[in-house]
This record gives sequence, structure tokens and C-alpha cells, in this order.
Amino acid sequence: MVHPRVYAALSQPIVGHLDAYFFQVMKDIGQLLGPVFGTTQGATLVISGTGSAGMEAAVVNFVEPGSKLAILANGYFCDRISEMGKREGAQVVRLEKAWGATFNDEEAIEFIRRERPQIVAYVQAETSTGAFQPGNAICTAAHEAGALVIADCVTSLGGMPVNFEQTGIDIAYSCTQKGLSCPPGLSPLCLSPRAMEWLGSRPTTPRSWYFDLKLIHDYAAVSHRYHHTAPISMFYALREALLVIAQEGIENRWERHRRCHELFVRSIKSMGLQMHVAEGRRIWTLNTVSVPPGIDDAQVRKRLLDEHGIEILGGFGPLAGKVFRIGIMGPLATEENVQFLLNELRAALGAEGYRA
Amino acid sequence: MVHPRVYAALSQPIVGHLDAYFFQVMKDIGQLLGPVFGTTQGATLVISGTGSAGMEAAVVNFVEPGSKLAILANGYFCDRISEMGKREGAQVVRLEKAWGATFNDEEAIEFIRRERPQIVAYVQAETSTGAFQPGNAICTAAHEAGALVIADCVTSLGGMPVNFEQTGIDIAYSCTQKGLSCPPGLSPLCLSPRAMEWLGSRPTTPRSWYFDLKLIHDYAAVSHRYHHTAPISMFYALREALLVIAQEGIENRWERHRRCHELFVRSIKSMGLQMHVAEGRRIWTLNTVSVPPGIDDAQVRKRLLDEHGIEILGGFGPLAGKVFRIGIMGPLATEENVQFLLNELRAALGAEGYRA
Repeated sequence: MVHPRVYAALSQPIVGHLDAYFFQVMKDIGQLLGPVFGTTQGATLVISGTGSAGMEAAVVNFVEPGSKLAILANGYFCDRISEMGKREGAQVVRLEKAWGATFNDEEAIEFIRRERPQIVAYVQAETSTGAFQPGNAICTAAHEAGALVIADCVTSLGGMPVNFEQTGIDIAYSCTQKGLSCPPGLSPLCLSPRAMEWLGSRPTTPRSWYFDLKLIHDYAAVSHRYHHTAPISMFYALREALLVIAQEGIENRWERHRRCHELFVRSIKSMGLQMHVAEGRRIWTLNTVSVPPGIDDAQVRKRLLDEHGIEILGGFGPLAGKVFRIGIMGPLATEENVQFLLNELRAALGAEGYRA
Repeated sequence: MVHPRVYAALSQPIVGHLDAYFFQVMKDIGQLLGPVFGTTQGATLVISGTGSAGMEAAVVNFVEPGSKLAILANGYFCDRISEMGKREGAQVVRLEKAWGATFNDEEAIEFIRRERPQIVAYVQAETSTGAFQPGNAICTAAHEAGALVIADCVTSLGGMPVNFEQTGIDIAYSCTQKGLSCPPGLSPLCLSPRAMEWLGSRPTTPRSWYFDLKLIHDYAAVSHRYHHTAPISMFYALREALLVIAQEGIENRWERHRRCHELFVRSIKSMGLQMHVAEGRRIWTLNTVSVPPGIDDAQVRKRLLDEHGIEILGGFGPLAGKVFRIGIMGPLATEENVQFLLNELRAALGAEGYRA
């Protein structure tokens, strides 16, 4: 759900992409993104494409052809990173887990020490499973091996702490349409000083010109030399979305999402249902609930949508038919909304024959 | 300048990127783009990035590493295609002309016959110079050599005929913020049946996943299988911009731009000024006027902007200080606006010491 102020910003008259006003908009966005990522040292940038464009920008700039890319693979978006890495000519190695499981420190450390990759990638918040992957041990082991770390923060940014600096992430990317409550269209990135230094001394030219972060950073924050024509309206919307967040206070926003998530989980358990992901490893903004035996998840979802206009998602891939994926984020993350949603979910499950 | 209806569409509530309504929006856009490109056989697609993203999509999908890319090089954006081709690992060969010159049929044909490339690229409407490059001879020679043809239509689409089919173009890309009078954010593409067939039988995987046209076409028009999250709001805006164009009638719109251009050129000549590009090779929507000897173009542009809020652009690269680049397009392309602009330009030149 997008705040009315953000829609209003989206339709403000556009200026040119080399206009001083637009550079101010980009500068504001960069500053507002700092606390949302959890960084004071990192460089924040915005890619003119949606979340997967941010993923491709991370891969194409930091994965050199022939280098070893180690992926902690436990869901759909890890597979997408793998695919991009292969297209980039990297040697992709993976540590596999079931969708919804997460990696403990020991297995992540052992994997990285064994593989000694140039770059490590993991998904902090996996939209396909609802799992949150802590990154401190991954980042420490990667840095000991001389590797940089890419973290997919598409579903965490704005809804729960990314803790960019505290975790030790080098390259984080996200989207605008989830935790930031803005329409899709841009991908915010955050780069550690280590990543910026690596980029500055990279001997080869990235294969992509559109996603070349050196050129984009120069355009956005250094010389303002023309690179591409940025989607001005989307930048207006993103700035407004970040201002809405700043006014609430990012900690307050996280806390609101956490409270709603905890209320949701308590109620789900009281309904005799199970969360798909283990406690302590759950994304606050995207809850995955196991579909009870004998219940057709598609019928429940259809009922919620047709009768109450509530859209919840199903699982896909290995989780098809096995989980409900329920987003509770942005302006919708209130206790009243969660109660309403739970009541309707209870009724829809009951109508499909579920008894707690 | 963006039509108020387009701004209004931009701020309509978003739906999901897999919503039936959104697929209808994409379908409408595809159909509305046909007459604008001048095609009934071509496949129209929209890339989730700005004009340069369309250029990169064209290069990354149709230029295989090691293949020969022949570029008719007469301005800034030909250089950008060359750069992307090199990054893609192509053997780039160029036929060079001064910025603002165009290629006649004989030299284009001779170049292509000599080089026998796999792919030919030219810029139909070169924003940096104001030159329009006809493509029939290029396309015929390329097809005889077994090559596909990429045409950059960033500044022509919507403002003057692209004539995709009649010219024989295989891959055309454009942007939304010029002749379509929409904010920047998307890149419309058009692919000939020959290009689609080539793509379907391409033995190698394109290096870019985000710009993989096979996957994008499948998502947008075939299976609707999730590829990336499209920038929904921008698609709303583009559809509305194309509806505004359809209501005027694309031929009427072209004719309006042509009339304004011809009025502009006549008046410029009556002021004793010269157009930079030869007659018959000028873009209707972007006029380049030679800066008269002894006149500082930056002062003239500053005067127009400060005193009258009129923004005209200067030249850059080899044309720095040598031309004014004056856009007359979309809702601004009326005879009244052109007269107003010419009066103010005359006054600003006079104030800087110009006497016809």
C-alpha cells in the first residue's frame, strides 16, 4: 500500500535529469536511505530499474568473469543470483538448504572457508519463504577469506533492520515497493567503503553500461556528468516515501512491524496453525503459514480475495500449495488490520473445512 | 512537457505485477505502440528502464560476443552503442562522419558490403546533432549480408515517423520522455519477425538476465510467468500518453510537428541564422541552429532561461559552443509557441550583440 503523499509526489511536474533540483532530490534520497539501511559510512545509490535491476547491478559490478561466487541457497532469489552469476561467467558454488530453512553460523563459516570465494551472496529476507538470514558470521568469514558480501535486502529494507554496517555487508540492494511503501520502479543500493574501494580498483570493465556503478555514482554524487536519463517521477516518489518514514522514525516503524508480526504469530498459533519458518528467523513483513493438511490453499486465497478483497499469496516452487505468504507492511501494518485479516483468514479456513 | 492526463494516470493506485488488469495495460500499450512505430508485424515490448536500458537490451540480446557490429557513427549515441558493443565482446567497426552529417545510400551500402557484419546499428534521430538518418539502404544492404539492424529511435518515436516496417528495421528502441510526452522511466522496443526468429534460435544465453528479451516477452505477452516486478505506475503513464496520441491521431501529430519544424526553420533563416543539419535530414522535434560567430551560446541560453523560463540546450562534444539544440515537441509543438520562442530567441541574440 502506497501513502497518498507518495502518489501525489509521483505526479509532480518533472524537471530535467541534469537539473540542480533533481540532483538535490537524489542527494536527499541518499541521505534518507542511510538510517534505513543502517549505515553512516556506506554509499547509497539508486538504480533506475526495479529490484532485480539492483541484483544485476550488484552481480555485474562485483562478480568478475571467472571469479568464484559462493551462494547460500535457500530460496527462489538465491537461484536468481546464481543464474546472473553464471551469465556473468562466474564459477558459482552453492550451499543448499530447504526453502524456509536458514544457515547457522558454523555451516556458513565452514562453507566459505572451504570454498575461499571472491564474493559471497545471501538473501537476507527471502520473499519466497519468509526466512530471515542473519549475516554476521557470513560477513566475518567472507572478509577473512578476502571476499566481498552481497546481501539481497528486497523484502527487509524499511520493514525491519537491515543493519548494513553492524552486519558487515558490502553490497546491499533492495526495491521500493515493499518495506518502503512506494510504487515499484527503483532499486536502492548501499555499498561499504570496502566495496567502493574494490570498485575503484577493479581492473576490468563491467559488461553492463546501464548498471555500471562507477558511472552512476559519478553522475549522481560526484561530477553530475550525464550517464542516463533517470526516471524523475519515481525519484520524487521515493524521496516522499523516505520522508514519510523519517517522520514516523525508522525505529518506530520497525517496532510497529515487529509488534504486528508478533501479534500475527501468536494468533496463528492459537488457531492451531504453524509458521513455516523457525522462530527468530522470520521476516516481520512477510509471514509464511503452513497450509493445514487437507486444505486447498488456492480456495482459501480465492475466498479471501473474492469475499473480502484481501490478497494473500501462495507458495511456489517447492512450497507450492504448502504455505500462505502474507504480507503485513507499510501503512497496513496496524494491529487493527492484523486482527481483521486474522478473522477473515479464520473464517475462510473454516469455510474450507479447517477445524483448529 | 507531460500532459495532465498522463500525470493523473501516474498517480493511480497500483496493482500487482501479476494482476490481470496489469497484463491488460501491457497489452494495450503493445497495441497502441504499433502505429507509433509504424508496424503491423513487429512485436512491441517495454523495458523497465529508461532509453539507454532499451539500447542495452538491444545490444545484449542481438550482439553475441565475438560477432561483428557495424556502426554508422555520426554522433554521441552511436558512441554509446559502440561502448556497449565492446563491453559485450563484439568486434566493433565504425564508419565515421562529422557530428550532424548523415550517410548517403552509397557509402552505407559500401560499408556494410565490405564489413559483412552480423549486426548493423545506426541512430535514426541523433539527439546530440539534430540529424535524421534514413535507413532503407542500410537495412537492405544489411539483410543482403545476413545481418540484423538496430535503430536508435529515442528522439523520433511519437514526434515523426519511425517507419519501422517500411524501413526494414529489425530492432528499434526508444524512450518515453521525448516524442511520447510521458515522464522518463520506460523504453519501448519493437522487434521484426526476423529479429524474433533470430532471438528464438540464438544458441547462447544473453549475459543480462534483467534485459533478457525472451524472458520479458514471455512474461509480458505469452505465459505471464513472473520475470521482474515491472514499474506499474510508469506503465499507467505510458498507456495514457499513447491514448492521448491515439486521440489526436498519430499522422496528425506527426504533421503538427512537421509544420512547427518548418515554421521554425523558415524563421531561423529569415533571422540570417543557419541550421546545423542539411535540409531533408533534420529531426522535426529537435532543431539544431548554428551559433553565429562572435556569440556566446551559454549567455544566450542563460538569458532565455532567466528572463523567460525557456530552456534550450547547447551542443556538447565536437559541437560544444557551436549549436543551440531546441526541442519543439509534444503539447509545446504549436505555431503560437514556436512564434513566442523565436521572438525571445531573437531578442536574446540581439541583447548579446547579434545583428542579422
